[in-house]
Amino acid sequence: MVIGGGSAGISCATRASSLGAKVCLIERKNLGGTCVNRGCVPKKLMWEAGRVWKDARELETVGIAPNLGPFDLQALKTRISDKIEAIRESYASSLEDAGVTVLRADAELLDDKQVRVKGRILSAKNIVLATGGSPILLDIPGKDLLSTSRDVFEWTEIPKSLLVIGGGYIGCEFASIFRALGSDVCIVDAGDRLLEQFDEVAVGHAQDILTARGIKVRLSVEPTSLSKTAGKITVEFDSGPAEAVTHVLCAVGRSPNIDELGPVTESMERAENGALKVTDRLETSASGIYAIGDAADRLPLTPVATRDGEALADILFGEGARLVDLDLVSSATFLYPPIAQVGETESGTAFDGITTPLPSGVLSAETIEVYGKINSDSATGQLKGAVLIGHSAADEIAWIASCLAAGGRSEDLTKATAVHPTLAEEVVGRR
Amino acid sequence: MVIGGGSAGISCATRASSLGAKVCLIERKNLGGTCVNRGCVPKKLMWEAGRVWKDARELETVGIAPNLGPFDLQALKTRISDKIEAIRESYASSLEDAGVTVLRADAELLDDKQVRVKGRILSAKNIVLATGGSPILLDIPGKDLLSTSRDVFEWTEIPKSLLVIGGGYIGCEFASIFRALGSDVCIVDAGDRLLEQFDEVAVGHAQDILTARGIKVRLSVEPTSLSKTAGKITVEFDSGPAEAVTHVLCAVGRSPNIDELGPVTESMERAENGALKVTDRLETSASGIYAIGDAADRLPLTPVATRDGEALADILFGEGARLVDLDLVSSATFLYPPIAQVGETESGTAFDGITTPLPSGVLSAETIEVYGKINSDSATGQLKGAVLIGHSAADEIAWIASCLAAGGRSEDLTKATAVHPTLAEEVVGRR
Ligand SMILES: Cc1cc2nc3c(=O)[nH]c(=O)nc-3n(C[C@H](O)[C@H](O)[C@H](O)COP(=O)(O)OP(=O)(O)OC[C@H]3O[C@@H](n4cnc5c(N)ncnc54)[C@H](O)[C@@H]3O)c2cc1C
Ligand SMILES: Cc1cc2nc3c(=O)[nH]c(=O)nc-3n(C[C@H](O)[C@H](O)[C@H](O)COP(=O)(O)OP(=O)(O)OC[C@H]3O[C@@H](n4cnc5c(N)ncnc54)[C@H](O)[C@@H]3O)c2cc1C
Repeated sequence: MVIGGGSAGISCATRASSLGAKVCLIERKNLGGTCVNRGCVPKKLMWEAGRVWKDARELETVGIAPNLGPFDLQALKTRISDKIEAIRESYASSLEDAGVTVLRADAELLDDKQVRVKGRILSAKNIVLATGGSPILLDIPGKDLLSTSRDVFEWTEIPKSLLVIGGGYIGCEFASIFRALGSDVCIVDAGDRLLEQFDEVAVGHAQDILTARGIKVRLSVEPTSLSKTAGKITVEFDSGPAEAVTHVLCAVGRSPNIDELGPVTESMERAENGALKVTDRLETSASGIYAIGDAADRLPLTPVATRDGEALADILFGEGARLVDLDLVSSATFLYPPIAQVGETESGTAFDGITTPLPSGVLSAETIEVYGKINSDSATGQLKGAVLIGHSAADEIAWIASCLAAGGRSEDLTKATAVHPTLAEEVVGRR
Repeated sequence: MVIGGGSAGISCATRASSLGAKVCLIERKNLGGTCVNRGCVPKKLMWEAGRVWKDARELETVGIAPNLGPFDLQALKTRISDKIEAIRESYASSLEDAGVTVLRADAELLDDKQVRVKGRILSAKNIVLATGGSPILLDIPGKDLLSTSRDVFEWTEIPKSLLVIGGGYIGCEFASIFRALGSDVCIVDAGDRLLEQFDEVAVGHAQDILTARGIKVRLSVEPTSLSKTAGKITVEFDSGPAEAVTHVLCAVGRSPNIDELGPVTESMERAENGALKVTDRLETSASGIYAIGDAADRLPLTPVATRDGEALADILFGEGARLVDLDLVSSATFLYPPIAQVGETESGTAFDGITTPLPSGVLSAETIEVYGKINSDSATGQLKGAVLIGHSAADEIAWIASCLAAGGRSEDLTKATAVHPTLAEEVVGRR
């Protein structure tokens, strides 16, 4: 019995069924969960549209595409919805083909064998919690005026002005996207830096890029209240001036959907962010109850959810499996251009450098500088990690992760030769 | 004494000078040579502009950017010329800083110690030929109507219709660029496939993409004559119908600039394409005369020219050097999207697949499919080569080359995890 039909639940259910298990999957909303309906997929499509529009407007600024015309958000939204609908349908039919029973309902966990669904009690030998997570809402006066990442996709117009509360990856991505589409954007964060999960030096450069693109960044400030006047939302802070904007996005983190599963979860061991602790068999502290995806204390990313989902099926019904190696997981934030990282970047011998992409300053009025760092063990030269800022960084990083997996050394990068002109040649082939 | 101030000559001269040698560099035209003035640099900038414009026009087709306005080629050309001028100047001053004497003149080689420049005879202990190459012109009636890759950058308008003779990388790139800018384009090739240097299966997919983008491809035909009537150029072939177009680009290959160096070169050993054979010290068959870059029988690519140039300086004046390992050289053709390749892709165990990039069909009316193949040794799993078609392929391939250099195995790709949503995740992290 799998509770939750997102990336984790679907992959676990499909694989388990293909291994001969009798599988029931319970989903209260839409198949595909966060990633497909209100996460990676619509976000990346908006990012791609924003990228094209930003690039085109840069050509406009320098007179190459002198007269661009408008951008139609509604047309974009329609095309994205159609795509999402198509993915949902393909999930529905592949689950059906795999022989998985799908129930559309809220599930309540009763014990390690039983679940209540629409008043009926169902039981199974193994229960898998794949309930994902939800945006955390700030608890301050006027909080009803906050939007979350779910609401963003429903906005009917490009914000005239947008305040993003929270400088994590989701906040920085939407700030970049709406800036590209023409919004005035300000990001505020309670901490003293953006993108805490990423290398500090690289994030310094990323912040310079955000600023160069016209995004205002305010650090070490906390919003204290929101109020609405004359069509604008005024946000007050614990220090510094208030901001008056048309839209406020709250992106202060996500919290796993566990409590709603019922009181039985109270006794289960949790991590600091509320995710369920799991063993290397993905079992929670309640034996026979497993957790995968954002519900588990792993990394809250789709590929981890998907691969752990399959691994759990292999553990329960197949020949066992190796879980995702979290040290070799690439991650990225889709800025313009993206920042991407893998492994350990802050201790060791770093080879790093700033460079200007060839088109920057030619096909745009402003120049932006990008950055890359490759980190290796000082004694052995063994590669330990990397962070890149560049147009292809989110794809490149997967191959760097593969180099790490292969035990590559920094000298291997000098033996290979990159394509000219690319950004990769700033590192690969250099001595 | 270095003859030729392109990628190879400049890097060799600069390095040799920094190693304490007394260096003179002779350049008859512009510093930077082919790459900077009429190759990689202006080509890539036109490609980037074409990419933005193609993407924007796709948004227009689906109603997201409903009214784009015109594209101003003249504005693009001015910005590119300014960039080229800046690069030339930076080369001039870095050569000056390095203490290299630069002579602006034609050089004639007299023997292994002497060169004639503007009627004067100069001598040096070591002579380095770094004279690059030039486009080959077809020798058929009406050949004056042919343009080469040099002329393309001088065109004052986007061709209404363009015939490209030759389906190598230069032909396919300009075909793609001008198609993106709105030309009607046809590529013809005498052989039975395009892009001979690239993996055959991958090139099949690349050709489908060209065709889907509206480029006509005619294989196994040879042009027999050109004639001009009523503002159009009519090209006749040995089989099939004639084509009547406004512009004809001849891109049938490049030939090294050796003969013009004088009769002394006649006795030097040459490869089939006319390039000078060199030893592993980059010495030609005439002792004391060295060759680097496109003049040498290596690979006619800028990074090879640059790195071999430095290596030669290290061999002559430093502590020796390893030449570029040609098996680990990445290469790419900038289509939309690019195709990129490294190593051996056609014998072994291949993991390959076709996929549709997320934005394709959403931010465009047509869907295009991209392709990737990773090749490994059937017995050991050791990676042997890869070919990718995808928006980031030209950058990604450098890291795959690094994986090859590190002796990576196909299982290493399964241990690593890619970013979602990217194209790299179709391979990295898959089992
Ligand atoms: C804006 C945004 C952008 C993101 N971008 C990326 C990205 O680019 N790359 C990336 O890797 N990750 C990204 N993520 C994270 C990614 O979406 C998640 O890691 C992933 O979706 C987790 O999958 P899951 O299956 O664990 O949970 P979910 O996809 O959230 O699925 C859980 C499902 O369980 C259902 N459910 C919950 N409780 C119950 C219940 N009691 N009964 C029945 N059903 C229930 C929910 O309705 C939901 O459908 C993004 C997230 C957001 C919010
Ligand atoms: C359209 C096009 C696109 C290309 N795109 C790419 C690409 O994307 N990536 C890539 O890696 N490669 C690309 N190339 C190939 C790349 O440009 C060459 O491999 C590289 O420039 C070779 O450098 P070189 O120094 O050997 O020769 P060159 O750059 O050609 O320099 C030779 C110089 O020698 C001078 N010279 C010649 N004879 C004499 C003489 N007798 N006396 C004095 N001076 C002389 C010439 O004027 C010239 O400046 C491209 C080439 C073309 C034509």
